[in-house]
Amino acid sequence: MDTLDLLRQLAIIILFAKAFGLLARKCRAPQVAGEIVAGLLIGPSLLNWVSDSDFIKGLAEIGVVLLMFSAGLTTDLKQMKKCGLKATLIATCGVLVPLVLGTLLFMGFYGFAEPGTDQFYHALFIGTIMTATSVSITVQALQELGKLNGMVGTTIVAAAIIDDVLGIIVLTFVIGLRDPSENIFSVLLKILAFFAFAIVVGYLCYIGMKWLDRRHPHTRRIPILSLALCFGMAYIADKYFGVADITGAYCAGIILCSLQDSNYIARKMDINNYMLFGPVFFCSIGLQTNIRDLNLNVLWFSLAFVAVAMIGKVIGCGLCAKACGFTGEDSLKIGAGMMTRGEVALIVSQQGLTVGMLESKYFTSVILLIIMSSILTPVILKFLYEKHGEADYTDFKHPVRPAELSGK
Amino acid sequence: MDTLDLLRQLAIIILFAKAFGLLARKCRAPQVAGEIVAGLLIGPSLLNWVSDSDFIKGLAEIGVVLLMFSAGLTTDLKQMKKCGLKATLIATCGVLVPLVLGTLLFMGFYGFAEPGTDQFYHALFIGTIMTATSVSITVQALQELGKLNGMVGTTIVAAAIIDDVLGIIVLTFVIGLRDPSENIFSVLLKILAFFAFAIVVGYLCYIGMKWLDRRHPHTRRIPILSLALCFGMAYIADKYFGVADITGAYCAGIILCSLQDSNYIARKMDINNYMLFGPVFFCSIGLQTNIRDLNLNVLWFSLAFVAVAMIGKVIGCGLCAKACGFTGEDSLKIGAGMMTRGEVALIVSQQGLTVGMLESKYFTSVILLIIMSSILTPVILKFLYEKHGEADYTDFKHPVRPAELSGK
Repeated sequence: MDTLDLLRQLAIIILFAKAFGLLARKCRAPQVAGEIVAGLLIGPSLLNWVSDSDFIKGLAEIGVVLLMFSAGLTTDLKQMKKCGLKATLIATCGVLVPLVLGTLLFMGFYGFAEPGTDQFYHALFIGTIMTATSVSITVQALQELGKLNGMVGTTIVAAAIIDDVLGIIVLTFVIGLRDPSENIFSVLLKILAFFAFAIVVGYLCYIGMKWLDRRHPHTRRIPILSLALCFGMAYIADKYFGVADITGAYCAGIILCSLQDSNYIARKMDINNYMLFGPVFFCSIGLQTNIRDLNLNVLWFSLAFVAVAMIGKVIGCGLCAKACGFTGEDSLKIGAGMMTRGEVALIVSQQGLTVGMLESKYFTSVILLIIMSSILTPVILKFLYEKHGEADYTDFKHPVRPAELSGK
Repeated sequence: MDTLDLLRQLAIIILFAKAFGLLARKCRAPQVAGEIVAGLLIGPSLLNWVSDSDFIKGLAEIGVVLLMFSAGLTTDLKQMKKCGLKATLIATCGVLVPLVLGTLLFMGFYGFAEPGTDQFYHALFIGTIMTATSVSITVQALQELGKLNGMVGTTIVAAAIIDDVLGIIVLTFVIGLRDPSENIFSVLLKILAFFAFAIVVGYLCYIGMKWLDRRHPHTRRIPILSLALCFGMAYIADKYFGVADITGAYCAGIILCSLQDSNYIARKMDINNYMLFGPVFFCSIGLQTNIRDLNLNVLWFSLAFVAVAMIGKVIGCGLCAKACGFTGEDSLKIGAGMMTRGEVALIVSQQGLTVGMLESKYFTSVILLIIMSSILTPVILKFLYEKHGEADYTDFKHPVRPAELSGK
C-alpha cells in the first residue's frame, strides 16, 4: 500500500469535508450532507482525486463503529425509563409504518416479491433504512422556538431515544435474515443469545469500569479501555452471533452510558470522530455513489422514497399520538418532528451495502431524504407552532387548546 | 480486507498497549517501552494474535506523522530564540558526537565501509538514530528534584529544542542521500528548496490560520484544517522534494506553533494520538521485531549501541558545556540530562526501515536504548545533584560552586 498517497487523500478528504460541511450549514442543511457532497466531488464521480481504496474503507468502517458507540454512549437510560408508555407507542408506530411502507414502495417499483426471496430482502431493507429518526435537527428547531421543554418537545425526544433502540433491533433482525441457511427462529435465537451475552458481559464490564472510574476518574485509561470494549463487542457480535458489528458497538455504548465519566468518554470519542473518522465515513458515502449510475428510474424512486419516508413517520407517529390523547395539531407536530433522518440512516445503508442487501445507487435516495427532511422539518414546525400554539396537557384526558386558553 | 478482523486486532492492541504501558510506568520505565513489549507479546514473535497487516502499517504511519506534527506544534519558538549561543552549541555537539560515534560503532562491528556504499549508509543511519534526544523524562526528574528552573535545567530544555530541529535536519539529509542517483549537492539543494517552500507556504498558511483563529477561536475547524495541513505538508515534502514525510509534518507543526490556539490544536491531536494512533504505532514496532531474529551478535551490538549512544551524548554535550563555562559537575549533569531517548528515536528508526536504510533487527537496540536511558538518567541526575548542588551562574565567567557558597 502506498502510505504516501494515503496522506494526500486524507488531506483532501479532511479539507473538502470541512469546507462543504460549513457551506451546508450556511445553507441551513445538515453538515453531513455537505460532507457527502464533498465525497461526490472529489471521488470517482467527478474529480477523481480520491479513490475508495481498502484503507479508506477500513477507516470508514472504524468511523461507523465509533459513531454508533457514541450514539449508545450518550443514551440517557434514566430519561428512557421515564419515557413512559406514550413515547414508546409513538416510537413503535413510527418504526413499523415506514418499515412496511418502504417495503411496499420497493415492491411497487420493482414488482411484488415472495417473502424469502432476495428481492424481498432488498425491499425489506429499503423499509429498514426508513426507520431511524435523527432528532438533532428537530431539537435545534424546538430550542429556537422555545418549545423544547413542552409536552410535545419532551415526547419527541423520548420517542427518538426509543426509536434508536427499536431501529437497531429491526436492523439486527433484518440482517440476520440475509443468510439463506437461517430461518426466522434461529435468527431470533441468535439475537436473543447476543443480547443475553451483552447483558451479562456488559454488567461485568460496567462493574469493572465503575470501580476503575472511581479509583482513577478522568484518566486516559477510562476512554482507552472503553474504546477497546467498543471494538471488542463489535467484533464478537458479528463473529459469534451473526449480529451487525454496529449493534455490538451500540451495546458497548449503552453499557458505559451510566458511568460517572460517560460524558468524558463521549467527548474524547467525539474528537476522534470529527477530526478524522467522521469526515472519512461521510465522504466515503459520496465516494461510493457514482452519479453516472443515476438514471430517471432511480431518480423517480428517490423522490418517492423521500415522500414515503417522511409521510410514513408523520402517519405512524402522528396517528399514534392522536390515539394517545394529543390534539390533532400537536399530533401533527410530533409526526413532523420525528421525520428527520440523519447519520444513522447512512450507517444503516452502509451496513446494507456491506452485507449485500442494498445497491450503492440507493445512497442517492438516502442522501436526498436526509437533506429534504432536515430542511423541511424546521420550516414545518415553525409554521405549525405559529398557527397553533401547544395545548395545555395538565389534565391529559382533557387537553386545553391555546385558543380556548386565551378565550377563558 | 477483512474489516471485522481489524476490529479484533485494534481491540487487542489498545487493551494490551495500555495495560503494559501502565505496568511499565509502575516499574519507572517509559510507557512507550511497555507498549512496544505489548506489541512483541501479541505479535508474530509470541502469541501471534495480531499481524503487521497493511492496514495496521497504514495506521502506524499516520501515527508517526501525527506524533511529529505534535512535536512541532508544541515547540516554543520564543523560548527557542532566547536559547542563545550556549544551548545551540551544546545541542550541536550533542548531535554530531553520537552521529560520528554511532557510524564508527557500526563499522567496528561489520567492517569499514567506503562513503557512498550501501554499508556506509547503514552505518550512518545507526549514527542518525543516536542523535535525537527526548527530554521529557529528564524534565520530570528535574522537576522532582526542584531544579528545572536552574541554569542547568533551562539549558537542557533549550538545548533539547534545538536538538529536535538539528535531528530532523540530519535525518532529512541522510535520507536524501539514499538515492544513488543523487549527489550530496542535489540533496542539499532539494532540502533547501523544501525549507524555502515551507517558509513561504508556511507563512501564508500561518496568516490564513491566524485570521481564522481570530474570527472563530476554539472552533472545530481550527484543528481540522491544521490536520489537513499536516497531512498535506507530509505528502508534498516526500513527493516533490524527496524529504521525509515526518519532516513535512514537523514543519507543519512549527508553522502553527505560534497560533493563539496552538495549545487547543495540540490537545485535540494528543487525544487522537493516545487513543488510537500512538498505541498502534508503538505496538507495531513490537510487531515488526521478531525476537527469533535475535542472536548473540545483535545482542552484543545492542549493548554496545546503548553504551555508545549514552556516552556519546554525555561527551558531546558535557565537554561543550564545560567549554561554555559550566563547572565540571554541572557539565556532567547537562550531559546526563541530554542522554535520554524516546519516541523520536523510534520514529527515526521506522523511517529508516521504510526507506531500506535499517534492518528491523536493530529495533531491539533502539528499544533497549530507550529503556536503559530512561531508567538511568533520573538515577544519575539525582546522584549528581545530591553529591554536588548546582553552582551559581550569576556571573557566568566566575561560577560559584555550592561548597564555596556555603563556605562564605
